[in-house]
Amino acid sequence: MSAGRETAALGPFRLASGAVLAELQVAFEQWGRPDGRNTVVVCHALTGDAHVTGEDGWWTTMVGPGRPVDTDRFHVVCANLLGGCQGTTGPQMTNPATGQAYGLGFPLVTVGDQVQLHRRLLAHLGIDAPLAAVGGSLGGMQALEWSLAHPGELAGAAIIAASGALSAQNLALSTVAREAILRDPAFRGGDYARHGVRPDDGLSIARMLGHVTYLSDDGMQERFGRERVAGTEITLRGPSFEVERYLFHQAERFLERFDANAYLHLSRCMDGFDAFGDGDARARAAAAAGTRHLVVSFDSDWRFSTAHSTAIAGHLGAAGAHVEHLDVPSSWGHDSFLLDLPPYLDAVAAFLEGLAAQ
Amino acid sequence: MSAGRETAALGPFRLASGAVLAELQVAFEQWGRPDGRNTVVVCHALTGDAHVTGEDGWWTTMVGPGRPVDTDRFHVVCANLLGGCQGTTGPQMTNPATGQAYGLGFPLVTVGDQVQLHRRLLAHLGIDAPLAAVGGSLGGMQALEWSLAHPGELAGAAIIAASGALSAQNLALSTVAREAILRDPAFRGGDYARHGVRPDDGLSIARMLGHVTYLSDDGMQERFGRERVAGTEITLRGPSFEVERYLFHQAERFLERFDANAYLHLSRCMDGFDAFGDGDARARAAAAAGTRHLVVSFDSDWRFSTAHSTAIAGHLGAAGAHVEHLDVPSSWGHDSFLLDLPPYLDAVAAFLEGLAAQ
Repeated sequence: MSAGRETAALGPFRLASGAVLAELQVAFEQWGRPDGRNTVVVCHALTGDAHVTGEDGWWTTMVGPGRPVDTDRFHVVCANLLGGCQGTTGPQMTNPATGQAYGLGFPLVTVGDQVQLHRRLLAHLGIDAPLAAVGGSLGGMQALEWSLAHPGELAGAAIIAASGALSAQNLALSTVAREAILRDPAFRGGDYARHGVRPDDGLSIARMLGHVTYLSDDGMQERFGRERVAGTEITLRGPSFEVERYLFHQAERFLERFDANAYLHLSRCMDGFDAFGDGDARARAAAAAGTRHLVVSFDSDWRFSTAHSTAIAGHLGAAGAHVEHLDVPSSWGHDSFLLDLPPYLDAVAAFLEGLAAQ
Repeated sequence: MSAGRETAALGPFRLASGAVLAELQVAFEQWGRPDGRNTVVVCHALTGDAHVTGEDGWWTTMVGPGRPVDTDRFHVVCANLLGGCQGTTGPQMTNPATGQAYGLGFPLVTVGDQVQLHRRLLAHLGIDAPLAAVGGSLGGMQALEWSLAHPGELAGAAIIAASGALSAQNLALSTVAREAILRDPAFRGGDYARHGVRPDDGLSIARMLGHVTYLSDDGMQERFGRERVAGTEITLRGPSFEVERYLFHQAERFLERFDANAYLHLSRCMDGFDAFGDGDARARAAAAAGTRHLVVSFDSDWRFSTAHSTAIAGHLGAAGAHVEHLDVPSSWGHDSFLLDLPPYLDAVAAFLEGLAAQ
């Protein structure tokens, strides 16, 4: 079991943009006992957090006693992301330069900055060399970036349902979600907290749209089809179909745990990522250092389709890096990475086993 | 050439819901000369209008002199849809019962009601038996419904990039777009005009999301990729990528010509359509009457994927109806139905040729 959420104050932090945060606070959880080379860093996705496993954990299929990331065997660490809203430095916190919350003025954060945060946290915990970084979606992007930016520091990176660079359609859908927040009059230029309001409508629209992209057409059809909400006629406002009721409910739940400025910052963090945008020199360095890569995609994922994983594996393979790409049949779209799918979970377990045996 | 927009007052109109409009006004355009059996009705899509061809026409690839729907040969009619905002009775008009604009209180309209509107207009024009109905997306749904609801009245129906019943994902995306409008504070429960405001932000979000669904992942990648807006850094508000600038521009243009209440009503009109929901009796009647059906899909369309057209053709074929399904290779998604794609246009031309020769 985790000791629950811990917080570390790690001093000044310089971002890739050149901006400097006077004080980096990191909220994180950890499980298991470190032995010097058994640390697995779990990197969370856009709306995730450090509470990976245990009661109400979001990735109990992957992480826990006897799971692929076995907390009886590995030391597992997960930090809340920079720019988020779960205790790590982010737009809700006070900017010492102004005495006000950062809000929209919080500096833009890159995937590389998230990796630096993880590395700073490990140094603070006295861990030089983690065994692996494991993550899905934005989490997988961090695992990939870590391998590329710090050759040989990881024995392995598990890059799941991720992208090396968002496509135009990915960017477009992210933009629509952000615009829903930015154009909500209650957003108040990001200073909503100071005005005692919240852009709940915009954040709801963003979440509903996000949710559609996390599921697949077939999966939604199987689960909801055109089933009508019992006892209702079709009305303009709805919900008239069960799928509408589901989305409205997901949006309500999301408002209880997430912040609009954090959504904007972490969404834009993904947009900017371009792992191989400067060519394959970084991939060659990762290859020379011997880092192993497991790339997993799901065949019904259209948020980050199999083609994104094929591209990642292609770049790594062409550079001579160790890479295995597994495309898993699943009708559940992007969210498949959270589900109990044995071929996928077994592959991650075997991958970590292989790293530990090196 | 068309005589431009004409308007007809067609008296009281009873909707499928039982609601009665005291006066049906229809705005329409027509081209060519009727000869008793050469009338082709073009049915427009969600955000289309009666101005099909000529300067600034939206379907000049399909309709015009020498085009598949040849205005030198056929009498072509297109009416603005019921519930829209282009001169046919809709939510912007005054409800005689209240003296105020209908707004959100405009009755829900079905695809069958749209077909009745077309039939009423033809009767007004003195045309008993149209040769064909032709439409894409919501337009194709009208052509299909016409064939099923009024067996033998059409010699043929060309059903392009359409659906016999929206999938859960289709419904979900429509809901997100509508919610963006409904939750815009300037929507004012649909009475925005009376308050001198407009829910432009909500309508913009709806349009941007719609636009993403009209294009394909590959098509957007080919056209925009990750190209950045020249001279800009990535910022939270953007536009930082060309695809963002494109969406913002499309939204701006849309505001000049469309109305939020009309968007809501026509979107919900699509949601409710379920052509074969009551079984195949209607398809058998269409088969017995000898109506011919051309069903066209585009292989990169994910708004109404090929599977939707396969299902339509399957129902019609199983009932013994004349049906041909053509799946056209195109990387341009749902919007392909508007483009100059010879295999598709030639198929429609041949289909109409066959009907005229009967």
